Amino acid sequence: MKQHRIGIIMNGVTGRMGKNQHLLRSIQAIREEGGIPLDDGSVIVPDPLLVGRNPNKLQAICHQTGIHSWTTDLNSALENVDYSVYFDSQTTSRRFECVSRAIQAGKHVYCEKPVAVNTSEALELVRLAREAGVMHGVVQDKLWLPGIEKLKVLIRKGFFGEILAVRGEFGYWVFEGDTVPAQRPSWNYRKEEGGGIIADMFPHWRYLLDHLFGGVEAVTATGATHVRRRWDERGQPYQATAEDAVYATFRLAGGAVAHFNSSWAVRVRRDDLLTIHVDGMLGSAVAGLRDCWIQPYAATPRPVWNPDIPSPLSYFDSWQKLPDQDYPNAFRAQWELFLRHLVSGTLFPWDLLEGAKGVQLAEKGYESWTTGQWVEIPELAI
Amino acid sequence: MKQHRIGIIMNGVTGRMGKNQHLLRSIQAIREEGGIPLDDGSVIVPDPLLVGRNPNKLQAICHQTGIHSWTTDLNSALENVDYSVYFDSQTTSRRFECVSRAIQAGKHVYCEKPVAVNTSEALELVRLAREAGVMHGVVQDKLWLPGIEKLKVLIRKGFFGEILAVRGEFGYWVFEGDTVPAQRPSWNYRKEEGGGIIADMFPHWRYLLDHLFGGVEAVTATGATHVRRRWDERGQPYQATAEDAVYATFRLAGGAVAHFNSSWAVRVRRDDLLTIHVDGMLGSAVAGLRDCWIQPYAATPRPVWNPDIPSPLSYFDSWQKLPDQDYPNAFRAQWELFLRHLVSGTLFPWDLLEGAKGVQLAEKGYESWTTGQWVEIPELAI
Amino acid sequence: MKQHRIGIIMNGVTGRMGKNQHLLRSIQAIREEGGIPLDDGSVIVPDPLLVGRNPNKLQAICHQTGIHSWTTDLNSALENVDYSVYFDSQTTSRRFECVSRAIQAGKHVYCEKPVAVNTSEALELVRLAREAGVMHGVVQDKLWLPGIEKLKVLIRKGFFGEILAVRGEFGYWVFEGDTVPAQRPSWNYRKEEGGGIIADMFPHWRYLLDHLFGGVEAVTATGATHVRRRWDERGQPYQATAEDAVYATFRLAGGAVAHFNSSWAVRVRRDDLLTIHVDGMLGSAVAGLRDCWIQPYAATPRPVWNPDIPSPLSYFDSWQKLPDQDYPNAFRAQWELFLRHLVSGTLFPWDLLEGAKGVQLAEKGYESWTTGQWVEIPELAI
Amino acid sequence: MKQHRIGIIMNGVTGRMGKNQHLLRSIQAIREEGGIPLDDGSVIVPDPLLVGRNPNKLQAICHQTGIHSWTTDLNSALENVDYSVYFDSQTTSRRFECVSRAIQAGKHVYCEKPVAVNTSEALELVRLAREAGVMHGVVQDKLWLPGIEKLKVLIRKGFFGEILAVRGEFGYWVFEGDTVPAQRPSWNYRKEEGGGIIADMFPHWRYLLDHLFGGVEAVTATGATHVRRRWDERGQPYQATAEDAVYATFRLAGGAVAHFNSSWAVRVRRDDLLTIHVDGMLGSAVAGLRDCWIQPYAATPRPVWNPDIPSPLSYFDSWQKLPDQDYPNAFRAQWELFLRHLVSGTLFPWDLLEGAKGVQLAEKGYESWTTGQWVEIPELAI
Repeated sequence: MKQHRIGIIMNGVTGRMGKNQHLLRSIQAIREEGGIPLDDGSVIVPDPLLVGRNPNKLQAICHQTGIHSWTTDLNSALENVDYSVYFDSQTTSRRFECVSRAIQAGKHVYCEKPVAVNTSEALELVRLAREAGVMHGVVQDKLWLPGIEKLKVLIRKGFFGEILAVRGEFGYWVFEGDTVPAQRPSWNYRKEEGGGIIADMFPHWRYLLDHLFGGVEAVTATGATHVRRRWDERGQPYQATAEDAVYATFRLAGGAVAHFNSSWAVRVRRDDLLTIHVDGMLGSAVAGLRDCWIQPYAATPRPVWNPDIPSPLSYFDSWQKLPDQDYPNAFRAQWELFLRHLVSGTLFPWDLLEGAKGVQLAEKGYESWTTGQWVEIPELAI
Repeated sequence: MKQHRIGIIMNGVTGRMGKNQHLLRSIQAIREEGGIPLDDGSVIVPDPLLVGRNPNKLQAICHQTGIHSWTTDLNSALENVDYSVYFDSQTTSRRFECVSRAIQAGKHVYCEKPVAVNTSEALELVRLAREAGVMHGVVQDKLWLPGIEKLKVLIRKGFFGEILAVRGEFGYWVFEGDTVPAQRPSWNYRKEEGGGIIADMFPHWRYLLDHLFGGVEAVTATGATHVRRRWDERGQPYQATAEDAVYATFRLAGGAVAHFNSSWAVRVRRDDLLTIHVDGMLGSAVAGLRDCWIQPYAATPRPVWNPDIPSPLSYFDSWQKLPDQDYPNAFRAQWELFLRHLVSGTLFPWDLLEGAKGVQLAEKGYESWTTGQWVEIPELAI
Repeated sequence: MKQHRIGIIMNGVTGRMGKNQHLLRSIQAIREEGGIPLDDGSVIVPDPLLVGRNPNKLQAICHQTGIHSWTTDLNSALENVDYSVYFDSQTTSRRFECVSRAIQAGKHVYCEKPVAVNTSEALELVRLAREAGVMHGVVQDKLWLPGIEKLKVLIRKGFFGEILAVRGEFGYWVFEGDTVPAQRPSWNYRKEEGGGIIADMFPHWRYLLDHLFGGVEAVTATGATHVRRRWDERGQPYQATAEDAVYATFRLAGGAVAHFNSSWAVRVRRDDLLTIHVDGMLGSAVAGLRDCWIQPYAATPRPVWNPDIPSPLSYFDSWQKLPDQDYPNAFRAQWELFLRHLVSGTLFPWDLLEGAKGVQLAEKGYESWTTGQWVEIPELAI
Repeated sequence: MKQHRIGIIMNGVTGRMGKNQHLLRSIQAIREEGGIPLDDGSVIVPDPLLVGRNPNKLQAICHQTGIHSWTTDLNSALENVDYSVYFDSQTTSRRFECVSRAIQAGKHVYCEKPVAVNTSEALELVRLAREAGVMHGVVQDKLWLPGIEKLKVLIRKGFFGEILAVRGEFGYWVFEGDTVPAQRPSWNYRKEEGGGIIADMFPHWRYLLDHLFGGVEAVTATGATHVRRRWDERGQPYQATAEDAVYATFRLAGGAVAHFNSSWAVRVRRDDLLTIHVDGMLGSAVAGLRDCWIQPYAATPRPVWNPDIPSPLSYFDSWQKLPDQDYPNAFRAQWELFLRHLVSGTLFPWDLLEGAKGVQLAEKGYESWTTGQWVEIPELAI
């Protein structure tokens, strides 16, 4: 049985996301199941080389996974011809330089979002990759969440009719760190270290909206730093300098409106940590991370406004939960598509240009917050 | 037992709201229970004189209620010294003229919102009333909804700590009228007849926000006409010319942000037709029309983002439903306060100036939609 | 207030259907509510003249309803110019002659189905009515059953996508009469008296299929007399000579297949006495007399065939029951449409030609049973 | 303890059905439990020799089961005197040749349905087997489904009285494969590869009807290709050329009528994927794959047709669910009977002639669809 070995330099797998989602649940899971089978009977087997700054952590991961190759020297890794792919899940501020060098070393690149700290650097990566003729991709994992997969089926089957409006609610209470430990790193709340929920979440909203509901044409956004004092990983108090919530409206091609709030200072009373509510002429749906509920036109209740009595309707019972299919981990799903793209040339539209669009939307969101105005989103040109 | 009879000219009680909420569930209910008892053992007994344009409808209401006095001649009613109060729940376009005449006739006035079609007319009413030295009030019923009463207790007891953000969701699917009959009159969807959800709902949001969370300082709003074709009361199709949804953000004195969407083209998957979600440093609450759920700091879950498995938490179970008290009808509650105000001089802060603020917010909302900018809400000056 | 009195000669109201559905729940109910309101503020008030052969029964009905006019003399009734409409719910065998005479007397006619015992007589009625220039209608009540109304909304909103197949199940166990009393008259089971479930039900299936799913183009039908010995109204045993079940398939314009079984010898294990199951590319629905359940594409389960374990799916839970609207009695709904048609000239497509199509389908059903072949349904020509 | 070892050449166990039902849940399960005990204390122990075309798959199965013998050379297997039985669960098109060769090699034969692609080949197998004097059997698994076992008890105990009619409903929605993966192989929908639901299911209906309710005497059938475009195992769209639904009526010896619809384009709202509804003079029953519900005469409700109110009866509650016994896997049950037949000469009426009848009914079903006529089913003669 023919095997396509693909050597992958994985930089940033000592971080939580890089380790859990990309290494363990994606690359390692694929390896344990014998690779990705192709139609011709051959299989793709990814072979990782772990790169990081802390040798102890790298060794620990190797010990846990049985992976043999690691280094703290990125240069030597990039010179190693046995590894044709460079993957980056470092902190954003380090991404541009490392991805640039990988491209210049002739590696195909795949990296986390945001691809860069601003649009011009993100576009520079696109330009470099095109010049070098390498293949490239950006993580857009939410497109493969089971709840979003269900939305995609609804859209493809025309369930909604004309889509009128999309409402997104994202977030949860991130503890300040003085009593209950914080669930997110402190740099998320420091502007000077690349923090801020606009920078973090707008790239996600960009590809979700673009791919599901119509390209984002304009944005109005208002950020807020609700929780101003937090405690860091060492228990020291610090001032939050980055916004922890953003209230935004997006205008979509085709005329729909998307109304999103994203907050790390909200207590969740809804179906999931992220919910996307879609209203269409013929039906509506609410998708969470895994589940999705629908209400077709004919099942739409006709409520009567009468606060003098308890509502005779439950506004939850009139929705139907969609059945489950088997869905792989969302990160792994995209990894498999990228590796097939490398070997078989199948389509992979989630490339560096798409990644740059995410950076652009965050940038425009900050601009709108500053100016207090709707900001148009121009087509990105290289 | 001493009785304070108060004669009230009620104009517009042939409409659905005027008849059901103001006449039957408020004035008539008070009369049937023998009036409003005061501390000194006396009672206030309202005595209505119904005014309208259709004598058949007025007679039918008299027949149903046992009220004897009605007329189609507003002038004669205003000249009648037995009636010291003028109430108005006509369509908005007729309000300014009739309320003005009532004030000039020396009547105390109480009226529905919006008090006028624009801010300058609304302010003119304030000026007239002050000059005439009459007492005045404007309906702000939602302040006495059971769910909002519960919120007020939470605020007064400091449950939230600093209030960070308020989220409002209002609306339901108003049927187009081709298959299922529409639940709202067609003029709601015609700009030229005073329709539009901004004009209808922003006055409510103004007094709710002002009285509960801090004065509204600025607004950004985007309207949309999602359903563009509807069928009227006679089954004829028409084009909707007024917006049926609005996506707004308000900046409140004290720094909180209020994020509201209001829509007649949404399918409801939440606790009630209107929900107000309040997040504070020490706890959160979600209020519907009648119920209210809370989550104090210590009960706040610490969710883990893992879409690979069904969420181990239900984001509904971690909230606690508040117990019920006996609440009167919200319209009646405010009527009682107004009548006591007339007789005993108790405070009644919901006056024509407050009503003008509601008109102002709608006006500024339309301005923001047009200009695409945040619009400041200046203090109203007479 | 202007009244349009319409005098209606009602022949056959001593029968169960004529009395309960047409007189009490339709004409009498309309009268008790003050008539049918028109847009111009006027009302239509039907004024019945009861005709029958048994004066005692007629008097009893008059006593029960407060109606004053009755006669056993149809001729004098037809000569009475105060009554412009003739309604007929007699047994089928008497219909042709009486409706003919009414038309010749210049009356508008409205009658029960089947309109005649064969297609040529049914067409003769159409010809007569056209020549006389009178207005005419045929009862097609099932089109206004709440369950069918819900199906119509689904179809109009495109819920099904392409409709693939329709399954009808009708019937229940009609007791033989020896122990439990029979629920239907004995003539239903005697061919020589016009009995037979094909003659009775195919007219219904014709208008349901024609109006909802596409014209019936061909039929194959197999009848059966399952219960061959029954006991009549006097407790005497008799041989059933008419079929009590029919197994049929219809080919519809547009390509859908309709598979119907109708039986008075079936024990019911389904949602209702009549169920219509519609399968479309984008969703399915099952309608009973009042309720309707839907399963859109995305909610369609993906069952696995494994009889070794109890099914992990309930094939009922994955359907959503549609909410109720207020529906009038189906017979009354059609009566109101017919009376509006007479006064205001509004459309009324359920006329004698439509009635003739129902007779035709029954006739072709019997032909198919006899020949064992599919039979085409030609366009009816006058 | 005496052991009767029976060597069985198993050809086609790399397919899903051959592997799961015949090898794992039947032969292997019997072996793991020590064989089939006979009355004399001895046991029958089947000893399989796996035959297939793909050595990798055969090895994998041997690895999984601990079976040692496999080959890709059917000829050598047939020459091996240690194996007296030949079993075939290959695709239909390969069956005739291989079963013929096995008979000619003197093997007893047992095979899946359909036994051949047409009746004449099926009869040729009967002739060959009779000439060779070998024993033979055909899989008719549904006769041993728990639900059908319960029906058989009801019939044997005279529960139904005279059986009047049988209704079969089979099927479920087989996804097209563009969004949700298809549950059946694409060849099922290609006529040129032996697809079509008539070919697949009519053999089952033949033995079910013949053995439970009376021999099938005539058939009328109408097929349909409802879903015309599907996506194959590689995600490529293709045109469906074989029917995915069939609407059939069967005339049974004794006079009962059987009305069956079978569809891969139906959304299931009934008790199970296959339901058999039997109506008799004294009672009715509905059987699913495992469960069975009954309604005896005395429990039969007497419904009243009144669509103006919700039905006061639930047409499900008036049925009683039968208790469970322990039933073995249906395939294994028949295997045990066949092996006992070989060793002890007990009766085994499900032989190649019975298999040929199934092929015949499918053939006649297609003929009826083509000609639009009822088609008689002649006795099969060798």
